[in-house]
Amino acid sequence: MIKIAVDVMGGDLGVEATISGLRLYSTKNDCSDIAFLLFGNEKTIESKLSEAPHNLLYRVCDTKDNVISGNDKPAHALKKGRGTSMFEAINAVSKGEADAVVSSGNTGAYMALSKILIGTIEGIERPAIVSILPNLKGNTVMLDLGANTDCSPTKLVQFAVMGNAVSNILQKIDSPKIGLLNIGTEKSKGTDSLEEAYDILQQSKDLNFIGFVEGTDITKGTADVIVTDGFSGNVSLKTMEGTIRYIVHTLKEGFSSSLMGKIGYLFSRKVFQKLKDAIDPRYHNGAPLVGLKKISIKSHGNSDAIGFSNAVSVAVKLAKSEFIKNIEEKISEIERKKF
Amino acid sequence: MIKIAVDVMGGDLGVEATISGLRLYSTKNDCSDIAFLLFGNEKTIESKLSEAPHNLLYRVCDTKDNVISGNDKPAHALKKGRGTSMFEAINAVSKGEADAVVSSGNTGAYMALSKILIGTIEGIERPAIVSILPNLKGNTVMLDLGANTDCSPTKLVQFAVMGNAVSNILQKIDSPKIGLLNIGTEKSKGTDSLEEAYDILQQSKDLNFIGFVEGTDITKGTADVIVTDGFSGNVSLKTMEGTIRYIVHTLKEGFSSSLMGKIGYLFSRKVFQKLKDAIDPRYHNGAPLVGLKKISIKSHGNSDAIGFSNAVSVAVKLAKSEFIKNIEEKISEIERKKF
Repeated sequence: MIKIAVDVMGGDLGVEATISGLRLYSTKNDCSDIAFLLFGNEKTIESKLSEAPHNLLYRVCDTKDNVISGNDKPAHALKKGRGTSMFEAINAVSKGEADAVVSSGNTGAYMALSKILIGTIEGIERPAIVSILPNLKGNTVMLDLGANTDCSPTKLVQFAVMGNAVSNILQKIDSPKIGLLNIGTEKSKGTDSLEEAYDILQQSKDLNFIGFVEGTDITKGTADVIVTDGFSGNVSLKTMEGTIRYIVHTLKEGFSSSLMGKIGYLFSRKVFQKLKDAIDPRYHNGAPLVGLKKISIKSHGNSDAIGFSNAVSVAVKLAKSEFIKNIEEKISEIERKKF
Repeated sequence: MIKIAVDVMGGDLGVEATISGLRLYSTKNDCSDIAFLLFGNEKTIESKLSEAPHNLLYRVCDTKDNVISGNDKPAHALKKGRGTSMFEAINAVSKGEADAVVSSGNTGAYMALSKILIGTIEGIERPAIVSILPNLKGNTVMLDLGANTDCSPTKLVQFAVMGNAVSNILQKIDSPKIGLLNIGTEKSKGTDSLEEAYDILQQSKDLNFIGFVEGTDITKGTADVIVTDGFSGNVSLKTMEGTIRYIVHTLKEGFSSSLMGKIGYLFSRKVFQKLKDAIDPRYHNGAPLVGLKKISIKSHGNSDAIGFSNAVSVAVKLAKSEFIKNIEEKISEIERKKF
């Protein structure tokens, strides 16, 4: 039996999305071996759960209406967070009462609380955010996407190890191709830090390191795992989001501006549905914060039921695996080798 | 009369694209006050020019078949470049025989030769690459896109000044909104270097600085000019290229895989043409290398006639303006203020 702590109140849509998301998850997966610890207002949760039949095994941990809001600074969350649904959900994991935690709440606060309450694996300073992005051949596991703006060679190597483990479990790829994001593929390109990380990774026998990759490779599927510092990773992810929005907006405007366009759209709906499904962030929702001693999953702030159910799915898959043990072993191996 | 030096042999398509591009440019623009200095194999150039009537005012500078190839390292180009079409075209500008130079050749070699032969404006270490990207409201001038991987606050401020001048001339925007690319819009986000650049830019009376922007803002059109270090800029630009390719590929596959899709495509062709035009890199071709004492324009390696004609257009517009003088004044002002 595994236990998943859920911050039911977190996210723009709160209980509406989280409880519907859990229900959706349970209709598509065998939940007989999962217990959910639901942190939030008991009355609201029970009322929402009673709206339709479900087969969730759960226990409500009443945190009333105490929540960390979207505007609260991480420092505030650390000082005043106790008693809120987010704090208590994370704390349940840190106390060993749950195996993983999921929240759609305030990212900064969630990162800070996860780091302080759960703690990082020895040798890791700050957790990295992992994202699963669509590519032409499948998916790219990419990290870090925001937490570590300056990255030493050691950090980049740690990211490679952690990305490798994520790809093993979530993408079921035994020996994922790992690329290091750079501004050219020649070895002499980029920063000293990247060149040093390149040398270390190339010597590694455990990792299938394929060398430097470029921004165009993310969606091309050149690598299964792409490693980068949190600054470039964040810029890249958001550029991708912006580009998708730009294209969708331009197409929508085009289709609605003429009769030909409207007819064209009617005939093309299936084509667009397929594209929409492929790039829909809800189907890639659930970003593991890796490098922590326990499993902590960040669901997007505006997740709906579909998005949240996917974040829960990530939490369950990682909780059922040897994810943390695997990473701990590999990181301590790196430390021992004193790379 | 302005003079434009052209590396006729540069780029994947060589003389085919460059001469056709010049011809295309001349059919759409008044060329009576422009003299083109064409560097390349005289016979090939004359033969290509004689294929159809044109009204180009030109002089061929015969460099035979001496070229810098796509694989030549910058160091090789510096040592052995003399006598090649690229070297001599750049050199013509450095000697004052031309006002601007355009080439589709090897980027690394072109950057290195432009820097060494033309030289940088006082206070500037290395030129920055500018790109003009489409956004929902018009275009975004973005820099640096590859030359300066590590960026001090001073460099970022210089980029803002140079981006401002590019937007003035190429986008005809008097007081362009300037954003500094970061991983969040709060002032406390990002690196120390960014925070320092933020403070300097905010004090500037000449620049319309709007603060930090994120990756999603590039295509949204939040800013007219986006300033970033060459590493993030390159990653962002290539992520955008990759995302566009991914979407186009997915749509093409969808449209061709069913009869409904094929019919849909027939009705939607105009919609796609509009999108294609908006994102077609050929229409945004011609990246100024800014920070040099003269005008040097990098045309994409695989440019065809349309692409090359746009690069020529950028060269002409900048050559006809007070671009260099403007930047020199502003940069020396920054130096004087000892930011």
